[in-house]
Amino acid sequence: MLVIWLRKIFHELRRLDEVLSIISSYVELRPLGFEWVGLREGLGRVLAEDVYAVYDYPPFDRSEVDGYAVNSISLIGVEEDAPAKLRLKGSVRVGYPPDTEVGVGEAVEVDTGAAIPRGADSVVMVEYSRRVGEHVYVYASVAPGDNVARAGSDIMRGELVLRRGTLLGPAELATLAAAGVSRVKVFVKPRVGVVSVGSELVSVEEGLPQDYKIFEISSHYVTSSLAELGAVPQFYGIVPDDEDSLREVLRRALEENDVVITAGGTSAGLGDLTYRVIESLGEPGIVVHGLKVKPGKPTIVAVINGKLVFGLPGFPLSAAMIFRSVVAPVISRLAGIPASYWGWSEVKAVVLQKVLGVRGRTALVPVALVRRGNVLTAYPVLTPSGSIRVLTYTDGFIEVPEDTLVIDEGSEVVVKLFRRFWRVPDLVFIGSHDYVIDELIRLVVEGPNYKLINAGSLGGLLAVGRGEADLSGAHLLDEESGEYNIPYFKKLNLSGRAVLVGGWVREIGFILPRNNPKNIRSFKDLFREDVVFINRNKGSGTRTLVDINLRMAARELGINPGEIPRVVKGYLNEAKTHSGVAVAVLQGRADVGVGVRHAAETYGLEFIKVGEEVYDLVILKDSLGKEPIRKMLDLLNSEKIKEILSRYVGYKTYPKTGKVLAE
Amino acid sequence: MLVIWLRKIFHELRRLDEVLSIISSYVELRPLGFEWVGLREGLGRVLAEDVYAVYDYPPFDRSEVDGYAVNSISLIGVEEDAPAKLRLKGSVRVGYPPDTEVGVGEAVEVDTGAAIPRGADSVVMVEYSRRVGEHVYVYASVAPGDNVARAGSDIMRGELVLRRGTLLGPAELATLAAAGVSRVKVFVKPRVGVVSVGSELVSVEEGLPQDYKIFEISSHYVTSSLAELGAVPQFYGIVPDDEDSLREVLRRALEENDVVITAGGTSAGLGDLTYRVIESLGEPGIVVHGLKVKPGKPTIVAVINGKLVFGLPGFPLSAAMIFRSVVAPVISRLAGIPASYWGWSEVKAVVLQKVLGVRGRTALVPVALVRRGNVLTAYPVLTPSGSIRVLTYTDGFIEVPEDTLVIDEGSEVVVKLFRRFWRVPDLVFIGSHDYVIDELIRLVVEGPNYKLINAGSLGGLLAVGRGEADLSGAHLLDEESGEYNIPYFKKLNLSGRAVLVGGWVREIGFILPRNNPKNIRSFKDLFREDVVFINRNKGSGTRTLVDINLRMAARELGINPGEIPRVVKGYLNEAKTHSGVAVAVLQGRADVGVGVRHAAETYGLEFIKVGEEVYDLVILKDSLGKEPIRKMLDLLNSEKIKEILSRYVGYKTYPKTGKVLAE
Repeated sequence: MLVIWLRKIFHELRRLDEVLSIISSYVELRPLGFEWVGLREGLGRVLAEDVYAVYDYPPFDRSEVDGYAVNSISLIGVEEDAPAKLRLKGSVRVGYPPDTEVGVGEAVEVDTGAAIPRGADSVVMVEYSRRVGEHVYVYASVAPGDNVARAGSDIMRGELVLRRGTLLGPAELATLAAAGVSRVKVFVKPRVGVVSVGSELVSVEEGLPQDYKIFEISSHYVTSSLAELGAVPQFYGIVPDDEDSLREVLRRALEENDVVITAGGTSAGLGDLTYRVIESLGEPGIVVHGLKVKPGKPTIVAVINGKLVFGLPGFPLSAAMIFRSVVAPVISRLAGIPASYWGWSEVKAVVLQKVLGVRGRTALVPVALVRRGNVLTAYPVLTPSGSIRVLTYTDGFIEVPEDTLVIDEGSEVVVKLFRRFWRVPDLVFIGSHDYVIDELIRLVVEGPNYKLINAGSLGGLLAVGRGEADLSGAHLLDEESGEYNIPYFKKLNLSGRAVLVGGWVREIGFILPRNNPKNIRSFKDLFREDVVFINRNKGSGTRTLVDINLRMAARELGINPGEIPRVVKGYLNEAKTHSGVAVAVLQGRADVGVGVRHAAETYGLEFIKVGEEVYDLVILKDSLGKEPIRKMLDLLNSEKIKEILSRYVGYKTYPKTGKVLAE
Repeated sequence: MLVIWLRKIFHELRRLDEVLSIISSYVELRPLGFEWVGLREGLGRVLAEDVYAVYDYPPFDRSEVDGYAVNSISLIGVEEDAPAKLRLKGSVRVGYPPDTEVGVGEAVEVDTGAAIPRGADSVVMVEYSRRVGEHVYVYASVAPGDNVARAGSDIMRGELVLRRGTLLGPAELATLAAAGVSRVKVFVKPRVGVVSVGSELVSVEEGLPQDYKIFEISSHYVTSSLAELGAVPQFYGIVPDDEDSLREVLRRALEENDVVITAGGTSAGLGDLTYRVIESLGEPGIVVHGLKVKPGKPTIVAVINGKLVFGLPGFPLSAAMIFRSVVAPVISRLAGIPASYWGWSEVKAVVLQKVLGVRGRTALVPVALVRRGNVLTAYPVLTPSGSIRVLTYTDGFIEVPEDTLVIDEGSEVVVKLFRRFWRVPDLVFIGSHDYVIDELIRLVVEGPNYKLINAGSLGGLLAVGRGEADLSGAHLLDEESGEYNIPYFKKLNLSGRAVLVGGWVREIGFILPRNNPKNIRSFKDLFREDVVFINRNKGSGTRTLVDINLRMAARELGINPGEIPRVVKGYLNEAKTHSGVAVAVLQGRADVGVGVRHAAETYGLEFIKVGEEVYDLVILKDSLGKEPIRKMLDLLNSEKIKEILSRYVGYKTYPKTGKVLAE
């Protein structure tokens, strides 16, 4: 039944792995032509033909060192304590012809790169010689050919130097110059028009969108990706949901480009006419009417009079993954080499937890990559398909084929990387947001090669437990014992796998507008009709503290704690950081939130202290030897930590700072 | 004694690993400033400050699917065979405000991305519904929040989105757009002036150099590398060895740039005044007067009124390695992030043969990388420091520290990669040059991701023996048995490690100018006074054939075979390919060479057949499972091989084609 409804809306859905061959049956996926460029414009271009040397390198027999050109016979039997005395007969300078010959018993001074004079068969290095007036004492013998590079020995005129399909980088350009090649035939860059479709879209350059309009996002991903893939993108702006406007823009884009990509406007919902318009543009029209993939189903591929049109799904994350899986392979073929050559790599990794597939569809699942010893591991990150930020903290995504319901723990998967220059981070922090841990991480990792994910205290402990993070930070209050962190460390079975190290203490309390206009004093006030609260994300230490206190207040007020999400206004609105809470209060979207004093002070807000809480560090045992971790432990046990904490209002050390609390 | 002389010439040489700290003591290696750019100009730029969201994403509570917004209470207990019937109350389109409320028992149609109307707490997917007139039957229940993305749940206004030092790629640009950030503060690109120094240099754009001038090569490597590192290079052209001209150009370059690099002109030889001129430009002047490194000793670093000047060694390969080791780390720090972030990576690899160091110097040794199972292995490639082509077939280089005389087999080394986008090749061929093997490799490997090194038959067999190549091709005649390849396969102990597979037969003979003006008929003619020969490289199968025949001819002529290199003119001149031989004859640089008929025909030359030789393939056993190898074996055993050979004059199959000859 399901399938029938889907057909009505999307016609026949195609598998992800069919798309390239469907496209190939209409359009040849090969470079679109060639042009000639000079070497200075050659960087990043792709050779359209084999290149042969037009010149010898070196162009003449030359010296590879500073020294004396000799006939090797003159130095037979010579040793350090039995030097030969040769008559100096002049010199050859680089760039000038040798104007003398060398006989047995004679030497001619030569620079590195100078031509070898007639009669010489080798060069003795200056370091093994000593000049005295018109003579040179030489302290070592040489064999014929020593320190001489023969004409054409490195590159011979007429020889094949570089092959068709080579991406020209610095090494290739230098080699071409040596071979006397000043212009090269390269593939033309594919021209690609990008059109955003949707009356709801507003360009970020135009200021904040008004009532229910949204920012146009996908074109930013698509145009910059096209540039990275060696294409020339042209952005045609945002076109409203209007059939005539859209037809006109797409016609123009098709005229001016080799490929056209639309973003947005392909959903099967009400406002979408992209499909209709593309179909009307020419023959054969739409050849892929949707994909068996999640997310990314409403993807369109059309062929219009020999040119390709891609309709990407509207959600930016879906658009990014479909671009990577479907569009990038096509564009890079048109540009002359595989996507991997533009730095769009794939890596193999092992999944350390099950990854669920989707029945009847290929699932695209973003993953974070972590190096464990010699093994690269991938962690699936579950995210709503409408999110975008996940792009900034995951490394790539995996494709779970439609016939695979689950990828088992320990399986090897192929990860398509989101970033062109990817490397294993020096340090991965997953845990609770804190201003001081932010600063410490920047201090111990050189450069930006760390990953810092604010996933809350609990999320952080679990991440260390799975080996996903090197480091976490937590401030989890145990309701029963009133103790911080240690009970959770034990409950989560982190003993043996991780170490809990004392961090610092910070003041926590209500963050309120200046002068506290609604006179909020306790958690009971959060149940008031006129008060809107901003909560923290589930799993954060602050959330735990909030929930404990709200339950106590509810009981005092005679309210069933199960009713809290309905009674406390804004309880379901979650900020992920202390700053997020402060900003929500600052902007009047909430009347109160709970966070650290430093956040309130930073934004000039009121703060009412509720108490102090302990923020400790959790370190993966396997990562204890890593340099950034060692540096951080040293820091915690030095006087420096006090100096750092003193710069943050409401922060201080406590007796356990830098000590091992559990392991 | 040696050290004293070096001091005289180069002052105090510095260690490679000291250079950065010496530079840092004069100049702060940090970004030079910042500027604001719009997102459309942001690709490849580096954030100069933390960026906070100015807008919520999503900007309002919205649907993540196409479906119906409902109050979840309406669907309690609903299942596939017990649907609920809801009253349809209108719809919300993307980009428009909801103009209705949803009560229990009601539904409002919503598109993916549309705002959730008041009263609804969840969305049921269209796939689980059926619309009949003014009603909707729903076949599944939902929980509160299902398929709804809350305002700010992905990015909350005021939250930190991206950190200082982030390299902006497609993912980052899309996220910034979602967060409402239209302009970003980025580090300015370092401006770097490049000056080539030397009266001997000629630009490749100007045509072939005349008498003992040479092409200027290094600036091509340096300027394109700078562009890759996020800098803006400006090339000031070639300056002759003239103190005044050089001073004027360097002054101008320093005025207009943050850093200046000179290439060439830093040798301690006669013609070099770069040193003197740089020293005269300002204070403190030259701070590094040469490096304890080989090659690359004549490297200069100067600080002139707070700006850096690098003088690179003259040989292009040395210049490239010194640029990579010394200059790139500096430039990338000035650009805001480590070189690795621009794709200038390092990889770890295991050396499978000893690498020799140089006493008192750090040795820079180019290496080829090969993947063996899960291990990346590095093979040192010995090359004269004046060569350049090595850049095209090696992957990077290793630094052997000055206190290390030898790096043992099996040691792990760090390889600095020459190429920005490096990947393990799908197939490595090292062996004898042949036209057909060239074509077969292109047929079996998709795209340009193979490595093809013409190292001669013997070099190829040794490379397979070391596991360095997947595939080799050989035509080695055994003088005693008169048999091809099999005796060598056995002598080199390849049994068990490799498989010898029958290839094809090709005609070999003299390649001569048209009409054979010097009437050369046999190897005895090569001993004539008026004949200049062009030889092949040592280790090539053709060289073996040539040497066997020359020895026979020498004996017949009563000449001691040891005298051959002196008597046969041009014997020491080596071409690396059949084409190289043909081109040398074509250009009149030699009167005769030995090669395959196909080479002679290609260049319209005369060919006198000497005999037929067998060209067989050697395959590493570990590589037999690789797809390109399997495809090649299939090809050899199909009719297709005959068709391919028929296109090459003088080629044909033989009874052993495609058969295993030894294993």
